[in-house]
Amino acid sequence: MADVTTKIRTGILGASGYTGAELLRLLLRHPAVEIGALTAERQAGKPMGEVFPHLGRLGLPDLVKIEDVSWDKLDLVFCALPHGTTQEIVAGLPRNLRVVDLSADFRLTEPEEYKTWYGHEHRAQDLQKEVAYGLTELNRQGVRKARVVANPGCYPTSALLPLMPLLLDNLIEPGGIIIDAKSGVSGAGRDAKQANLFTEVSEGFNAYGVGHHRHMPEIEQELRLAAGRPVTVSFTPHLVPMNRGMLATIYVKMADGVTADDLRAALTARYEGEAFVGVTPAGVVPATRHVRGSNHCLIGVVPDRTPRGAILVSVIDNLVKGASGQAVQNMNVMLGLGETTGIDGVAMFP
Amino acid sequence: MADVTTKIRTGILGASGYTGAELLRLLLRHPAVEIGALTAERQAGKPMGEVFPHLGRLGLPDLVKIEDVSWDKLDLVFCALPHGTTQEIVAGLPRNLRVVDLSADFRLTEPEEYKTWYGHEHRAQDLQKEVAYGLTELNRQGVRKARVVANPGCYPTSALLPLMPLLLDNLIEPGGIIIDAKSGVSGAGRDAKQANLFTEVSEGFNAYGVGHHRHMPEIEQELRLAAGRPVTVSFTPHLVPMNRGMLATIYVKMADGVTADDLRAALTARYEGEAFVGVTPAGVVPATRHVRGSNHCLIGVVPDRTPRGAILVSVIDNLVKGASGQAVQNMNVMLGLGETTGIDGVAMFP
Amino acid sequence: MADVTTKIRTGILGASGYTGAELLRLLLRHPAVEIGALTAERQAGKPMGEVFPHLGRLGLPDLVKIEDVSWDKLDLVFCALPHGTTQEIVAGLPRNLRVVDLSADFRLTEPEEYKTWYGHEHRAQDLQKEVAYGLTELNRQGVRKARVVANPGCYPTSALLPLMPLLLDNLIEPGGIIIDAKSGVSGAGRDAKQANLFTEVSEGFNAYGVGHHRHMPEIEQELRLAAGRPVTVSFTPHLVPMNRGMLATIYVKMADGVTADDLRAALTARYEGEAFVGVTPAGVVPATRHVRGSNHCLIGVVPDRTPRGAILVSVIDNLVKGASGQAVQNMNVMLGLGETTGIDGVAMFP
Amino acid sequence: MADVTTKIRTGILGASGYTGAELLRLLLRHPAVEIGALTAERQAGKPMGEVFPHLGRLGLPDLVKIEDVSWDKLDLVFCALPHGTTQEIVAGLPRNLRVVDLSADFRLTEPEEYKTWYGHEHRAQDLQKEVAYGLTELNRQGVRKARVVANPGCYPTSALLPLMPLLLDNLIEPGGIIIDAKSGVSGAGRDAKQANLFTEVSEGFNAYGVGHHRHMPEIEQELRLAAGRPVTVSFTPHLVPMNRGMLATIYVKMADGVTADDLRAALTARYEGEAFVGVTPAGVVPATRHVRGSNHCLIGVVPDRTPRGAILVSVIDNLVKGASGQAVQNMNVMLGLGETTGIDGVAMFP
Repeated sequence: MADVTTKIRTGILGASGYTGAELLRLLLRHPAVEIGALTAERQAGKPMGEVFPHLGRLGLPDLVKIEDVSWDKLDLVFCALPHGTTQEIVAGLPRNLRVVDLSADFRLTEPEEYKTWYGHEHRAQDLQKEVAYGLTELNRQGVRKARVVANPGCYPTSALLPLMPLLLDNLIEPGGIIIDAKSGVSGAGRDAKQANLFTEVSEGFNAYGVGHHRHMPEIEQELRLAAGRPVTVSFTPHLVPMNRGMLATIYVKMADGVTADDLRAALTARYEGEAFVGVTPAGVVPATRHVRGSNHCLIGVVPDRTPRGAILVSVIDNLVKGASGQAVQNMNVMLGLGETTGIDGVAMFP
Repeated sequence: MADVTTKIRTGILGASGYTGAELLRLLLRHPAVEIGALTAERQAGKPMGEVFPHLGRLGLPDLVKIEDVSWDKLDLVFCALPHGTTQEIVAGLPRNLRVVDLSADFRLTEPEEYKTWYGHEHRAQDLQKEVAYGLTELNRQGVRKARVVANPGCYPTSALLPLMPLLLDNLIEPGGIIIDAKSGVSGAGRDAKQANLFTEVSEGFNAYGVGHHRHMPEIEQELRLAAGRPVTVSFTPHLVPMNRGMLATIYVKMADGVTADDLRAALTARYEGEAFVGVTPAGVVPATRHVRGSNHCLIGVVPDRTPRGAILVSVIDNLVKGASGQAVQNMNVMLGLGETTGIDGVAMFP
Repeated sequence: MADVTTKIRTGILGASGYTGAELLRLLLRHPAVEIGALTAERQAGKPMGEVFPHLGRLGLPDLVKIEDVSWDKLDLVFCALPHGTTQEIVAGLPRNLRVVDLSADFRLTEPEEYKTWYGHEHRAQDLQKEVAYGLTELNRQGVRKARVVANPGCYPTSALLPLMPLLLDNLIEPGGIIIDAKSGVSGAGRDAKQANLFTEVSEGFNAYGVGHHRHMPEIEQELRLAAGRPVTVSFTPHLVPMNRGMLATIYVKMADGVTADDLRAALTARYEGEAFVGVTPAGVVPATRHVRGSNHCLIGVVPDRTPRGAILVSVIDNLVKGASGQAVQNMNVMLGLGETTGIDGVAMFP
Repeated sequence: MADVTTKIRTGILGASGYTGAELLRLLLRHPAVEIGALTAERQAGKPMGEVFPHLGRLGLPDLVKIEDVSWDKLDLVFCALPHGTTQEIVAGLPRNLRVVDLSADFRLTEPEEYKTWYGHEHRAQDLQKEVAYGLTELNRQGVRKARVVANPGCYPTSALLPLMPLLLDNLIEPGGIIIDAKSGVSGAGRDAKQANLFTEVSEGFNAYGVGHHRHMPEIEQELRLAAGRPVTVSFTPHLVPMNRGMLATIYVKMADGVTADDLRAALTARYEGEAFVGVTPAGVVPATRHVRGSNHCLIGVVPDRTPRGAILVSVIDNLVKGASGQAVQNMNVMLGLGETTGIDGVAMFP
């Protein structure tokens, strides 16, 4: 597959949004991939440079409607489409085409769960058996074999990477987990909304979606798998006046006799050899600037003063490890390419 | 005292920092106050406009050293000096002079507690009996009679205003309180430090002082008073790339049978008639932009999905209600002036 | 008129935009004014606190449609409506009502000029005789007597305050003036536009409207009055990733024998005694942070290395001296109130 | 030279500053280069991850003092040292070592000019004959043969790329050129200075170094070469509240009969085939976000309303094409590597 003379032909469905543009930034440096199709319904017919001037002059195909894509010329598509509309589009794709879906459509495995949070029956439930949840480091085998990868949400990625190994090892209690998460504004997408104007966001900070953010069931579904029983988390997202970056401050209760050093040791052991997940030394907490523009997740562990309390701090770039970077990582795994190919850049700082 | 023909003569010790400048912004619009002295050790001799160009051309006195202040020409001084150096200076002031101290020096009432957190014996412990803790809404009588007011820290202000009434009413449990706090950069002061450079802070977000921030004992001391027994909180501050503003997301466990609506009702009742503290309606969470530049604190209450969990969100401007604005409020109370005088401005938005 | 027992009753037409909110921030501290009506077509029926949460809880009237205003209860209205729609509304107001119009509709005195730049015939040209151009410091007599004041644009304010006196005194040449202007984002208003999203603006800088910004004819009209002959300027606006603030770097050619010191002296003399316009000393250039939130304009003069060249740097807050602050200043002058009343605050820094 | 089995061994002198870190970000993705030495005088002995956490965990050599570098293990060094200290260090290097110097020390060819602007005699003037000015696109042959390349300043890069071809073709006049330049804060370096604190810079804009910035003689030296006679420019830098990015708005007078379209056509022809310099179509002005993190320069041309006036707008990332990216580009040319190797990334947006 990794034949250098024949490149992987990829398409991006929904290339006019930020995750689409970020996929292109990464794929353009990927030596084994070429871009065969770019779609955007409302912008169809335009050259990419008109939608994203920084992506002009690069020989990219013009934007087309999904119905005008020649699927037989593609090996894999990235879906960067809105939630809810993706499922039917993926269901209509040729069966030999592999898919990395950045929407939430295939992340929830339980139909009832999906219906509860999205307000309608899932329209391609039968596809779910071909789907793997694409938190790469924790489901590499699943990703390798899947035809469709459900790329995780940014918040779940930042929360699950630190929490899953600790729950699997019974080092923390499944109850009482509190995830206080903070995200840059690009997570809100490129649609013109008053709430996301520079003047509304700059020089300010706020919580949003308190108690009902749609990433919550995704987090709980995966934690349930790790804990072996239902888990209810407290999850509160906040908006930071920055373009990119996500930090989760996670409050956990440790099992009897466990220390913060034990948690750190367990995470260090779990992620040893992983290119994209690192654990900071005792006394060091990671910051979002350490991962800006990169596919890395950094995790810090701090003892809390409360009984058996510990604090986990994890950081990612919401558009890279939280979206497009992990999507490319999943593609690499699916196709047997080197897992870090095209996404091996370090953070851009300052 | 509130005679319009004789203005209160105030001095600001430590006028070259951000809280000093902010005191001036507020006092310059205060009809009952005049500025009699401004000190700054290293900048002594300079006109104010050289240190803060926006405060030039206003007829303010030049900066002098503390030793050169004519105390007999002052009625009240604001101390905006570094922690640790303030106690001896206050001890050396004439006994008839009233003081609002913005440092942490007189906030902790227990000498051992002070020594533990500041690493040395308190050098003016006997003064403590003349001191009131200046969280105005909750200690108005104390402030009125005190000679010295210990102006609360910004983090304690944002945490105590929502928590204290709920603990006093036994609506929440004293155990397991988690305060995840976020602050603008001005809280770090005006000293040139690499960590606070624009290039280090902008487009990023991080936690700091995890597990050992000095505002923790101040918070716990006051909560202990409200709860009637020792309280240990989890407190994690974060740095937001904005100049001003502070938001605390506080996770609490409610007492049996209590609901989030009960918490909101209790806070609404407690702060009814208060000019500076408001409670947002159900479904609305406050944002820092709603209080930017104003002396307001807004509090929102949200039910959490975890058993008996509730989330309190409070916002202040760290330089106003979290420092200089509350200092002026305390001065107003101490001197029998209208409590909102000079600090009645609404937020500056955008 | 300045009777303290009877307050001026004002209305704000178009109170749901940023200049409307800024008018309220200022008027709420104005001792001689009360707010009688607030309009917003699409938001009619809502309380102000729903549109601007920081303006809730203040006892302000709810938003209504313009057609539902009781004009007989008002003494003066501020029009903060979009360009083009204002002229007919002002024409329909009772003739005894005084008006400060923040739109561009009455700024251009020549009908042809208006038509050229706005693409249609002016629909209330006959009103122009009751209008004064409200650059207060330079047209105080006109403002005092006018029924309608055309409040200047932000760019014209920042350019005309330094340029007009120098042209009037023949110290600079009318030809070859270059105005390189930079503005915060609030100048673009509160409408949801992709170009003004946080993610599009933050961490970037760009020119816009190069060669065809509508503030150009306004600038040239006033400069023509000062120079006594037609003036063509080069004017290029840029967008700065900040909420508020405007800085104009103006390149001029001095008349024979004139020096930069002469320019500074002339401006200093011209603005001596003015509360809101200051000239910085030689060697000091003003910054937007020195005027943030205040009604001040600061002007610096620097000699250029090119023959007879000089550089003028002026700064204002685009929402205050560039819009709502100057509007209140004009109201004060129109009604014989103290000119600085309600707008005497210093900058908010940081 | 471009043998894939033997990598170029490079060192970075001054690796603890922003340009040093940026060199590493780029070189780490360069397939033909390895990092043999990193120096930092005050931080010597530390691992890189302690100075720049995002550069930890990469197997980089620890920081050492310059005196401890084994020069025989290096093929080329990048000097990212402070101005003034570089010349003696470069003079002391082995003569076979090639050098890309990011300081200003070797940019000015005239000893008097250097002395005038830097206040002391140049201490390695004899080296100047081995030096080429590294504005790559305009001096590729010189760079190829030079032992030492004087990497241009960021402001000169942004100004010279648009101006030089137009002067060489006599399309614009050498007199009266005005360069109004705007830069992100990273250009000021990583030293802790009050003026560069987040709180001083954020939400503000200002000019600095008006009339005496040290990049002025560098600009004039190169323009003199192009014009064939002395050129005096007006150059005013400004500080934008963003980490990276530089935009120059350049006002020129066109030669008789020349139009803005002619300028655009000339620039387009000149830079045809260049990977890193692009000219935007008529009606489009470039923005710094289009080049953030990339080695590109984009140039727009707009007719001005003044007689024979035209406006050039150019954008670069000050740390990439304005510093470290161009340094790698120069290394590539010096060593016969593909010119775009390691620096072919597109902009990071948002």
